[in-house]
Amino acid sequence: MRLSQSFIKTLRSAPKDETARGAQYLSRAGYIYKEIAGVYDYLPFGLRVLDNIKTIVREELNRIGGEECLMSTLQNPEPWIKTDRWDPEKMDIWFRTQLAAGGELGLGPTHEEPFTEMLRNYISSYKDLPVAVYQIQTKFRNELRAKSGIMRGREFLMKDMYTFATNEEEHDKLYEEVKNAYIRIYDRLGIGSDTFVTFASGGVFSKYSHEFQTLCEVGEDNIYYNADKSVVLNEEVLIDEVMNDLGVKREELENTRAAEVGNIFTLGTKFSAPLGLEYTDKNGERKPVLMGCYGIGISRVMGVIAEKMCDDKGLVWPENIAPYKYYLIGLNEEGVKKAEELYHGHEEEVIFDDRDLHAGEKFADAELMGIPYRVVISDKTLADGKAEVTNRQTGETKLVDLAELY
Amino acid sequence: MRLSQSFIKTLRSAPKDETARGAQYLSRAGYIYKEIAGVYDYLPFGLRVLDNIKTIVREELNRIGGEECLMSTLQNPEPWIKTDRWDPEKMDIWFRTQLAAGGELGLGPTHEEPFTEMLRNYISSYKDLPVAVYQIQTKFRNELRAKSGIMRGREFLMKDMYTFATNEEEHDKLYEEVKNAYIRIYDRLGIGSDTFVTFASGGVFSKYSHEFQTLCEVGEDNIYYNADKSVVLNEEVLIDEVMNDLGVKREELENTRAAEVGNIFTLGTKFSAPLGLEYTDKNGERKPVLMGCYGIGISRVMGVIAEKMCDDKGLVWPENIAPYKYYLIGLNEEGVKKAEELYHGHEEEVIFDDRDLHAGEKFADAELMGIPYRVVISDKTLADGKAEVTNRQTGETKLVDLAELY
Repeated sequence: MRLSQSFIKTLRSAPKDETARGAQYLSRAGYIYKEIAGVYDYLPFGLRVLDNIKTIVREELNRIGGEECLMSTLQNPEPWIKTDRWDPEKMDIWFRTQLAAGGELGLGPTHEEPFTEMLRNYISSYKDLPVAVYQIQTKFRNELRAKSGIMRGREFLMKDMYTFATNEEEHDKLYEEVKNAYIRIYDRLGIGSDTFVTFASGGVFSKYSHEFQTLCEVGEDNIYYNADKSVVLNEEVLIDEVMNDLGVKREELENTRAAEVGNIFTLGTKFSAPLGLEYTDKNGERKPVLMGCYGIGISRVMGVIAEKMCDDKGLVWPENIAPYKYYLIGLNEEGVKKAEELYHGHEEEVIFDDRDLHAGEKFADAELMGIPYRVVISDKTLADGKAEVTNRQTGETKLVDLAELY
Repeated sequence: MRLSQSFIKTLRSAPKDETARGAQYLSRAGYIYKEIAGVYDYLPFGLRVLDNIKTIVREELNRIGGEECLMSTLQNPEPWIKTDRWDPEKMDIWFRTQLAAGGELGLGPTHEEPFTEMLRNYISSYKDLPVAVYQIQTKFRNELRAKSGIMRGREFLMKDMYTFATNEEEHDKLYEEVKNAYIRIYDRLGIGSDTFVTFASGGVFSKYSHEFQTLCEVGEDNIYYNADKSVVLNEEVLIDEVMNDLGVKREELENTRAAEVGNIFTLGTKFSAPLGLEYTDKNGERKPVLMGCYGIGISRVMGVIAEKMCDDKGLVWPENIAPYKYYLIGLNEEGVKKAEELYHGHEEEVIFDDRDLHAGEKFADAELMGIPYRVVISDKTLADGKAEVTNRQTGETKLVDLAELY
C-alpha cells in the first residue's frame, strides 16, 4: 500500500484514558479508534492484523474438521431460559434490547444455546456424530469496567468452537485435537513459547478446564508454574487438592502475570440435556450429546501481542500477523525512483512511504507501526545495488542485494 | 469437502412461516437457519456464499482506492444527537440497549456518524482528501416486519462505503467511480444483465440518488423503464418533473417488480457540518467536507439471487458465488474409487458426496443445493475414461475426459 494514498497517519497522542502502552501505540499508529471504553473501531492496518489472526485460527480449526458458521447476534431468550442463563442473576453480562414488534432480545455473549438448538435439526443418530462447529463473530458483554484497550472489551471479536460427541472417549479425543490445534495456533501467532496450557476450574462434568495463558505484565491473571513449566495452574485452583492431583508442591511454584488468550472446557450435557439435543445410539437408546466449548478472543490476542511486543519506539509485530511485512523508504531522487520500481507488484506485503516527509519522520512511523522490516534505498545503497534492511525486533541492519529483497 | 464429514444434510421442509421459495430452499439445503423473523444463522455453505460475495465486493472497492475498516456495532448517542438521528421520531429503526455502567447505546443501523467522527482525527487539510472508506459489517434495524427470508433482515450483513471530498467535482468523480465499481460487482455476481441503475429520490444536496435494482418477482420495489432500458426510475420519483428531466414520457414506460441490491447517495455536508468535519483549503479557509454514501446488502444480495435463480428442484447458483463449483458422485465400486481419487487435491472446489445413500438422493441434493456442475463417475463412463457432467442451470449433460475435468 502506498501511504500517500491512505487516510492513515500516525498521531502524537492516544486517548487520555488509554493507560496500557500497547493500546496507546495501537491508537497512535492508526490501528484502532476508541468509540467508548471497551468498544473500538478497527482501521485498515488493525483490520489486516485481525484478518491475519483469523486466517491462522481458521486454517488450524479446518484442519481438525471444524466447520465454520456465522450465528446471529440477536438472541431469542427461549433457549437461554431453558438453560437458566437468561436471568441477570445467573448471567450478568447481557446487553438486552426490545424488538419493535414486541419482545425482548439479547446480544449474544457466547453461543452454546443457539448452536445446540440449531444442531437439533441435524443430529439424530450416533452416525451424525461427532460434530465440530465454530464461528468468528462479534460478541457483546456488558462489563461494568472495560480496560487495557482491546484486551477486555464490551464488543470484541471471538472465535468460539463447540464439539458434539456420543461418549466421553469421543469427546476426549476432540478435546485433545482442539488443544493441539490451539498450541499450533499460538505458535504461528508468534507467542507460542510464552503461552502455557494452564489448569483452571472446571465444572460439573470435568474437574478442570484448560486456559491458554500468555506471559504479559498487564495481564489480569496470576499463574503458578513449576521449574520446567510442565505444570502451570491458575491462581483460582491453587489449593492442596489440585496440587496433589498434579503432583506439585506450593513451595516449588513460582508465579507471574499472564493474559488468558484461549480456553477449552468440557460441558458434558449441561446444554444438550435442557435443550433436548439427543442422539439414538447403536442400541436404539436416546442419549444426550456430550459437548465441549473452546474460545479464542481474536481481538484480545491482538491486544495481548501489542502489549507484550512493544518497546519505547512502538509496536513490534510478529511476522505472521503484521499488517505488512516491509516498510519501504526511498531517499534522494534515485532512491525514490528505485523504491517506486521495487514497490510495483508487491502492494500486498509492502507499505511504501511515498509521502512528502523528512526521512526521520518516516523512520519513526515505521517503528511506531511495528512493521517487521524497514527497507531503505538511497543513492548510497544503490551504488552497490543494495538496500538497507532493518529488523524491527532485533534492530539489526544489513545490506541486501536488490534482487533478493522480498 | 466430503459430505460424509459435514453435519449438513438437506431437510424435507423449511420453517412454516418461510414463504419465499428461495428462502425455503436456502433453509432446506442447509445454507441458513432461522433464529427469529429477519434474524438468520449462516451455516457452512451459506457462509461460503457470503464470503464469495464479499470477496468480489472487496476486490472492486479496493481497486478504486477504498480502504477497509471495521466500525463498532455499539453506538454512542452523542454524534447521532448532533445529526438529529437519535430521536425515535427521526429514525425509528434503532435497537437500543443499556450499558451496565450507565447510559444508553444503540446498535448501528448505518455508519455515517462514526466514520465522520473518526475521520476528524485524520482529515484537516485539502491534502488529506479525497478519502474513501468502507466496511463489511453486521447491521441492526428494528423493522416492524421482516420478510422474504434474508432479503429484508433485522440483522444483516452490509457493505457500507463513505467518500469524503473537497468540492463537488471531486465528489462527482468518486461517485462515478463507485457507480462503475457497482456495475462491475453485479456483473461478477452473475446478475449484471438483470440489474439496472435506477433514479430514486435524492435529498437536500442532490436531486436524485441511484439505486441498483434487480428484476425479481418477490422484490419490494416497482420500477419503470423505457424501451431500451436506458432510463429506469423507481416508482417513488414517477412524477412529471422527473420524467421531463430524464426525457421520458409516462406512456412509453413499462413497469416490473425489482429488489434493491445497492444504493448510492450524495450527502453533501449533511453529516460533516453538524459533526464539524472540516478541511483547510488552499487559501487557508475552513470548509465542511463533502460526503457520499454507498451501500450493498451482502446477505440481501444472496437472498435476491436465491429467489431469482431457482427452479422447481432447488437453487441455481451463479458460478462465481456458488459455495462449491462441482458436486462429485461416484457410482458402483470403480466409480466410487475413481471419484475418491479425483476429489483429492480439489477439496476447496468440490463437494464429494461420499455418503451411504442411493444415487437418486444424491442427485436430488445436488440440485437442491444448486451446485453449478454435477459430476458423475460410474463403471459406464469410466469405460471411456470419462465423467458425466451436468450443468445445473441448463440441465445439459456431456461426457468429459477425466483429465479435463476441473
